[in-house]
Amino acid sequence: MDSVTALYWARDSHRVCGVLSFEYGARHNAREIPFAAEHAARLGFEHRVVNLGFIGELFRSSLLNGGDAVPDGHYEDETMRQTVVPFRNAIMLSVACGWAESLSAEGVIIAAHGGDHAIYPDCREEFMGAMGEAMRAGTYAHISLIRPFIALDKGKIAAEGARLGVDFSRTWSCYKGGAVHCGTCGTCVERREAFLLAGVTDPTVYANLGPLPPRPGSR
Amino acid sequence: MDSVTALYWARDSHRVCGVLSFEYGARHNAREIPFAAEHAARLGFEHRVVNLGFIGELFRSSLLNGGDAVPDGHYEDETMRQTVVPFRNAIMLSVACGWAESLSAEGVIIAAHGGDHAIYPDCREEFMGAMGEAMRAGTYAHISLIRPFIALDKGKIAAEGARLGVDFSRTWSCYKGGAVHCGTCGTCVERREAFLLAGVTDPTVYANLGPLPPRPGSR
Repeated sequence: MDSVTALYWARDSHRVCGVLSFEYGARHNAREIPFAAEHAARLGFEHRVVNLGFIGELFRSSLLNGGDAVPDGHYEDETMRQTVVPFRNAIMLSVACGWAESLSAEGVIIAAHGGDHAIYPDCREEFMGAMGEAMRAGTYAHISLIRPFIALDKGKIAAEGARLGVDFSRTWSCYKGGAVHCGTCGTCVERREAFLLAGVTDPTVYANLGPLPPRPGSR
Repeated sequence: MDSVTALYWARDSHRVCGVLSFEYGARHNAREIPFAAEHAARLGFEHRVVNLGFIGELFRSSLLNGGDAVPDGHYEDETMRQTVVPFRNAIMLSVACGWAESLSAEGVIIAAHGGDHAIYPDCREEFMGAMGEAMRAGTYAHISLIRPFIALDKGKIAAEGARLGVDFSRTWSCYKGGAVHCGTCGTCVERREAFLLAGVTDPTVYANLGPLPPRPGSR
């Protein structure tokens, strides 16, 4: 929901040169990528899928096919650490930056947001600042790393998406990648919270709509 | 010759967890990767090859199969710019850093050196500094970017390799990736210069051993 909202935001505020998805052996890739393709086609943008199959061969993570089961619970829990794919954001941003340079684009937009997860080092501000500098210094065009949602939490992104007319029923979050959203994994819990916080009707079909777990900080 | 020398250097100064090669659709990959595998096997290290096939699909460069012809001449010439693969070093370092984190390693060694090419933005100090910071900040283990040869020129690397017992006849530089080194492309010129400067016998078979072109600065 973050990335699709960022795409609609970009349509209004930039000249979009292309839309990039990554297939990296995660359970939910087969769910999220067709939605990305659908939105790109609807907006008339080129959409490419980059195969990072080596991630599944080299790295271990419960996010990946063949890994351990995806844990339930709140995203901020320490258990979510097993869903880390090492340095994933750097790999994706590097590829996107190279493509941007090839397309003569001026920047790469990522939907990183203020609620992003301190358990993932490659979501932290310190990483993003250095990576943005590496992108600027390492390209002829001085490619910018653009993070329009960095001051927003996920609830605000849901509100922004609703304002931009995003059909959230055509987006995917669940890390388990089943037929419908599970409703209980960290990213489903976060998705449900976001719609609640935004006061936006949640169009998602969940397998399990039990009570949301408390945020760890509020225990 | 730089990377293989760095491997022998690492054997003496670090606990080596693994050796990584990248297949990215460059003409010379089929030449250089078997040599990397040979040296890793000789030293008893795990060697993995990462397929970055998407680079050939997304990016254009004369370095890649299907691109324009590799230009002859000195590496510092502006014509060499067409051999740039956009943000290649960032992509490779990001993957290596993720693998390092997976292996519980403490650092990634790259044979970047002081003679590296200002025509390539992702070889410049400003990029390398920022990328090293991104690697440190973006990993649990605070992975280091280690550049043992950064104060050396390529001649010094040839001397260091000779000291470490590297069999340079089992290394590959030529960007054209033919049956033997061409002797005239930018990286062949640089290789020939390095052995000359080091006073080390060059065991390489070149197709063309004509006079070395002058360095652009000395014209």
